[in-house]
Amino acid sequence: MEITRRNFKESLGAVYGAVEEADFLAIDGEFSGISDGPSVSALTNGMDTPEERYAKLRKHSMDFLLFQFGLCTFRYDQAQSKYLTKSFNFYIFPKPFSRTSPDIKFICQSSSIDFLASQGFDFNKVFRSGIPYLNQDEEAQLREQYEERRNQMNGSGTPSYISPLSGKGPVNVPDEHKDFINRVVEKVEALLNNSEKTVDLEPCSGFQRKLIFQTLNWKYPKGLHVETVETEKKERFIQVSKVDEEERRRIEQQKQEREQEELNDAVGFSRVIHAISKSGKLVVGHNMLLDVMHTIHQFYCPLPEELDDFKEVTMCVFPRLLDTKLMASTQPFKDLITNTSLAELEKQLKEKPFKAPKVGCSEGFQCYDTAAEQLHEAGYDAYITGLCFVSMANYLGSFLTPPRAHISARSKLIEPFYNKLFLMRVVDIPYLNISGPDLQPKRDHVLYVTFPKEWKTSDLYQLFSAFGNIQVSWIDDTSAFVSLSQLEQVQIAMNTSQYAESYRIQTYADYMQSKQKSTSKNRKWAEDGWANTTCSHMHNRSLTGKRSISPTQEDQTSDFGVADSNWSHYTKKIKTDAGGSGGCGQTYAVDSTTDSWLKPQPGEAAVSTSPAQGEAGSEEADAWPELPANQNQGSQATSTGLFDVPQVW
Amino acid sequence: MEITRRNFKESLGAVYGAVEEADFLAIDGEFSGISDGPSVSALTNGMDTPEERYAKLRKHSMDFLLFQFGLCTFRYDQAQSKYLTKSFNFYIFPKPFSRTSPDIKFICQSSSIDFLASQGFDFNKVFRSGIPYLNQDEEAQLREQYEERRNQMNGSGTPSYISPLSGKGPVNVPDEHKDFINRVVEKVEALLNNSEKTVDLEPCSGFQRKLIFQTLNWKYPKGLHVETVETEKKERFIQVSKVDEEERRRIEQQKQEREQEELNDAVGFSRVIHAISKSGKLVVGHNMLLDVMHTIHQFYCPLPEELDDFKEVTMCVFPRLLDTKLMASTQPFKDLITNTSLAELEKQLKEKPFKAPKVGCSEGFQCYDTAAEQLHEAGYDAYITGLCFVSMANYLGSFLTPPRAHISARSKLIEPFYNKLFLMRVVDIPYLNISGPDLQPKRDHVLYVTFPKEWKTSDLYQLFSAFGNIQVSWIDDTSAFVSLSQLEQVQIAMNTSQYAESYRIQTYADYMQSKQKSTSKNRKWAEDGWANTTCSHMHNRSLTGKRSISPTQEDQTSDFGVADSNWSHYTKKIKTDAGGSGGCGQTYAVDSTTDSWLKPQPGEAAVSTSPAQGEAGSEEADAWPELPANQNQGSQATSTGLFDVPQVW
Repeated sequence: MEITRRNFKESLGAVYGAVEEADFLAIDGEFSGISDGPSVSALTNGMDTPEERYAKLRKHSMDFLLFQFGLCTFRYDQAQSKYLTKSFNFYIFPKPFSRTSPDIKFICQSSSIDFLASQGFDFNKVFRSGIPYLNQDEEAQLREQYEERRNQMNGSGTPSYISPLSGKGPVNVPDEHKDFINRVVEKVEALLNNSEKTVDLEPCSGFQRKLIFQTLNWKYPKGLHVETVETEKKERFIQVSKVDEEERRRIEQQKQEREQEELNDAVGFSRVIHAISKSGKLVVGHNMLLDVMHTIHQFYCPLPEELDDFKEVTMCVFPRLLDTKLMASTQPFKDLITNTSLAELEKQLKEKPFKAPKVGCSEGFQCYDTAAEQLHEAGYDAYITGLCFVSMANYLGSFLTPPRAHISARSKLIEPFYNKLFLMRVVDIPYLNISGPDLQPKRDHVLYVTFPKEWKTSDLYQLFSAFGNIQVSWIDDTSAFVSLSQLEQVQIAMNTSQYAESYRIQTYADYMQSKQKSTSKNRKWAEDGWANTTCSHMHNRSLTGKRSISPTQEDQTSDFGVADSNWSHYTKKIKTDAGGSGGCGQTYAVDSTTDSWLKPQPGEAAVSTSPAQGEAGSEEADAWPELPANQNQGSQATSTGLFDVPQVW
Repeated sequence: MEITRRNFKESLGAVYGAVEEADFLAIDGEFSGISDGPSVSALTNGMDTPEERYAKLRKHSMDFLLFQFGLCTFRYDQAQSKYLTKSFNFYIFPKPFSRTSPDIKFICQSSSIDFLASQGFDFNKVFRSGIPYLNQDEEAQLREQYEERRNQMNGSGTPSYISPLSGKGPVNVPDEHKDFINRVVEKVEALLNNSEKTVDLEPCSGFQRKLIFQTLNWKYPKGLHVETVETEKKERFIQVSKVDEEERRRIEQQKQEREQEELNDAVGFSRVIHAISKSGKLVVGHNMLLDVMHTIHQFYCPLPEELDDFKEVTMCVFPRLLDTKLMASTQPFKDLITNTSLAELEKQLKEKPFKAPKVGCSEGFQCYDTAAEQLHEAGYDAYITGLCFVSMANYLGSFLTPPRAHISARSKLIEPFYNKLFLMRVVDIPYLNISGPDLQPKRDHVLYVTFPKEWKTSDLYQLFSAFGNIQVSWIDDTSAFVSLSQLEQVQIAMNTSQYAESYRIQTYADYMQSKQKSTSKNRKWAEDGWANTTCSHMHNRSLTGKRSISPTQEDQTSDFGVADSNWSHYTKKIKTDAGGSGGCGQTYAVDSTTDSWLKPQPGEAAVSTSPAQGEAGSEEADAWPELPANQNQGSQATSTGLFDVPQVW
C-alpha cells in the first residue's frame, strides 16, 4: 500500500492494525545520500572500531533525508500454514506545516540520487506528497506553543519575561496605537449593548492583535470570546463574540480538539514509528544499521555522541532487532550463501537447501511479485527482507529433532542473532552489538603505516611484498592499516622500517594508545547489560542531552588504561553473572578461543544477548543445534575471511 | 524550449546561435534552497554592509543547487519593430559521469522544495534527466587525467612519484603476479608470430591491467596497440592488437576525439554559461544577486572570500549586468511602481504610463503566454524579466526630444543601471555595485542595542517610544540596530541608557569600530576601477586561490583605519580621473549631497560606471534626461524610504 500525505490519516488505522497483529515486522529506508565525507570509502575503514564507525556514520550520514520508509508486517496464519503480509510504502517529507515550524535542511548526494533515479524512484511523490513528521523535542515544543497561546488567549498566562519600561497597568499601549485600541474598545462596547452576536474588527498587524487580546482580556474577563480569523487573502483580523460561560467553554473545547488534530498531523509519520516501537515486536532489516540510525535521528532525537548512549536509545526504540545480512554472513548460512546483497540473497534462499517461504497477501493489500523485482522501493525491500528472514529461520528448524518446517519469530533459535547489526567492511568485527559490549578482536598482526600522499595500494603491496599476503585498510591519503598474515612478521617489519625515510610503521596497539591518550573516557558495561535501563521517557521526551544512568551503571563506570580495557581483553571471557539478568537459563559465550559462539553454555560465564532471555525453557530451548562457530579463532591468518566483506556499499 | 540531458547536445547549436544574434539576454535560476542559516531573516539584516551581506550569502546559500536555469534571448527585428525571443529552460543535475568524477552533495531546504512543488516543479526531470556540468577546476583536472592516462598508455609519462622498494628495471612485478604476467607475455608473443590481428586477454584487476600496460610498453615499444575494453557485464579486459605506426596513430587520434567528446559531455551545461560570458552581452535578471553568485559558484569557481574579489570575478564572467528589480526601485520608476515582485512588475509594466513591449516568438520556439503565468519556471521568469526590461527601457525613451518608442539594449540611457544588483532588505544601500565601490551611507542615527533574549520587537518600540518612529533591524536573539528618525535623539538615547541594566546602547560608529578592530584588511579601489583587470584567465583556469592583481591596483592597496576608509567617506566625492579610463566624456557622480546621481556631470569628479563608456558621443548622449535623484540626500529621516524594501524574500 502506497501512503502519502493524501491518504495518511485514513490509512493510519490499517497500519496500527497490521503492526498489532503481526508476528514480526520488516523495515527498509531509502535516503537522499550516504556520506557527506570526502568519499564513501573514507567512511568505512576496515579497521574501524565500533566507536569510530558509529562516530563516522553519525557525523557524515545523518544530514541526509530518509524519504521513503518501507514497512512489511508478517502474520503467521496457522490454518493456512503460511505468512500473510501487509506491505506499506511511505513517502516522507518534512513539509513545514506553519510559518513557525522547523524548516528542515537536508543534503542530497548526487550519486545516490542518480542511482534512485535510474531505479525509477518518484521524487515528485516525495516532495509534493510526502508525509511530514516531528521528532520528540519538536513535538513537545509544538505542544508547549499551543498551551502557551491558549493561556495567553485566556489571559491566564504568566508573561515569560518582563518588558522594559512597562507600566504597572496590565496593558501598556504605545502612544501611536492608543487611538486604534480606543476605537476597538468602542466597537466592543457597542456590541455588548446591541443585539448582534459578533463583530469583526478590521485587519491589523500581529502586534496590534496582541494589544487587542490583552486589552479585551483585561477589560472584559468574562462574556466575550475573542479569536483571530484569517480571510481567504490570508489577512488576519479579530472576531469578537458575546458568549456565556458554557458557550465559551464549548468553543474552548472545540478549539483544543482542533489543535490536537493539528498536532497529530504535524507529528505525522513519527506516529508510525512510535507504534512499531511500542509494539516491542521483532523488527527485521537488511544491513540495517543506517536504517536504524536514520529512523531514530529523524523521528525520535538527534543521535547521541557516544556509541553506548546510542545503543541504549536504540534498545528503547527497537527492543528486538535482527539484521538479515548479519544472519546470512553467520554460520550455518555463511558457507551456503555466496552473495549477501539483498537481491541475491532472496534468490539463493529460494533454492536448496533452503525453501521459498509460503506467503500470501492479506486481503486488500497489493502483492509484490518477486519475479518483477521492484528493488529499492522501500516497501518491496522490506517485503523480501522479511522473506529472507523466514527462509533462514525455517532452515534452522531443520536442525531440530524432529525437524520443523516453520520456526516462529519468537523462537529461541533466532535469539543469537538479536540486536547484532551488520558492520560494513570491518574485517574482524562482523557486527555492532546493540544490547551489550562489542567484540574486541586482537589486532597484533596489524600495522599502522604512514607514507607520502602519492602512494597507492600497489606501493604498499610492494613494500610488504616479502611478507606474502597482506590486507590494506586505507585511513586517509597518507596512512593505512596493513594486516600481515603471520604474527611473527610484525617484528621484522618494525625492524626494517627503522631505516626507512619515506614511510613509518607503528604497531596497532601503539597507534591506538597514542590516539586515545587525550580521550580517556571509557565506560564499562554494567554486568547485567540493559536490565536497569528505563525506556519510558523515550515516549514522552527525547533523549538528547544527558541520559539518566542507573546507579548500578554509574557505580561501574571507571577509567581504564586503554591496553587494559579496550584492546587486550578479547581473548578473555567477559564475566557476567548469568543468573543476574533474571534467572536466565540460557546464555551464549563470547569466546574467541573455542567454537562456542552460537552454542549455549548453560551456567557458564557469558554475555546476555537478548532481553527475551527471561523466558527460559521454551519449546525449542532443549533442542539447540550445534552450529559451527563463526568467530575469530585465535589465528589472525583466517580471521578476516570468516565474514564476507561486501565489495560494494 | 525545454533542454535536458536527452536533447542537450543536439540543442547546443541553437543555444549558441540564439546568444550570438541576441541584443540582450535574460536569465533566471531556481535553487534547492535559499539559506542554511538558522533562518532566512538572519541572512538579511537591514543594516548589513555590502561586505557582510556578501559573506552571509556566500556562507549560507552556496551549498544549494541551481537546478533549473532559464535563458531567454531577445533580438530586435527592425523590420517588424519588435523583439523576437528564444526561450530555453535547462534542467541541471551534477550526475557523476564516471566512478572517479566528483560526487556533489547539495542541500535542500524543505520550505523552498515545498514551494517549488506547489508550483508544479518537476523534480523527476531534474534528477533523472538534468544536464551535468563541471566548474573550471574540475574541467582542468579531468583534462589532465585524460592526458596523464594517455601518456601512461604510451609509456611516455614520467611517474609522478617514486615507488618504494622499486627496482631499477622499468616494471616491478610483485611475486604473486609474476606467473600471470608471464602468461600474458606468452600470449602476446604468440600473437606476434601468428596471423591473428588481435588477442583478448582474460578479465583482471586494475592493478594487473596496470602491470600489463607497463610490461607490454616496455617490452614492445612499437607495433602493438593495447587497450582496456569493457564487456556488457562491466568486466574489464585488455585487448592487444598488432598495428603499424600509421594505424597506431589513427587509433590514437580517434581515441583523443572520443575523449574530447567525453570531456565536452562532462563540462555539459557550463558550456552554455561560457557562451553567455564570452558574448559579453547585456545580461538581465530580476533580483539577480543570488542567480549571479550561484552561476559563478557552480559553473566557474568557488566564490572568493572577499567581496572585491567577487566583483572582479563577476565582471569577468558577466561584464554587463542589469537588475530589473533595482531598475524598478529607482527613479523615474520608483514613484510609478508599487510592487517590484516579478509577477506584479510584469503586470504593471503593461499599463500606462508604460507600454507592453511588442514581442514575438522566433520560429521553432514555443511562446510563453503571460496570461497563463508559468511563474517559477526559470525559462518563463527569464522571459518576463526581459519583457520588464524592454518596457522600462522604452519608457526612458519618452524623456528624449523627440521621444523614442524603442530604446536599444545598448543605449546610454540604461547605462546608469549597469552592474548594480539589488540588495534585499538593506534599508539604506539599495544595490551592490559590481563595477566599483559601494555606497557608504552615514549611519549616525543608528544605534546598536543589546538586550535579554526574551525581548521582542514590541519591547524595542516601547524602549524608544519617546522618540517617535524607529526602525528595528534584528541581528540576533540579543541584539538589533535601531534607526532613530532624528539625529538629535541619538545623544539623548545614549545618555538615558547609562542607567539601564537590562540593555546596552552603542552608536553605530563605535560598534563597527570595535567589531572591525581585529580585521584590519581593507582594500582601496583602484582609481580607474576595473580598467586594468584581465579576464582572459577565467576562460582557461579558475580563480579560486590568489588572484592576479594588476600592478596599478596592487600599488594602491593599503590598510586604512576603519573610520577613515569605510564609514566616513560617504559624503565625499570619490575622486576619479574621468579621462583615465579611456577618454570617457560621460560620467556619473556618486554624491549624496546633490540630486545628481543619474545626471551626467561631464568632466566632473565621478566614478565610471560602465565598461561601455568609451563609446562617447553616441546618438542619445546629448539628450540625457534629467531624472529625479534617488540617492541618500543627507537627511537620515527620509533615506530609508527611498527604496522599497520588499517584505517577502
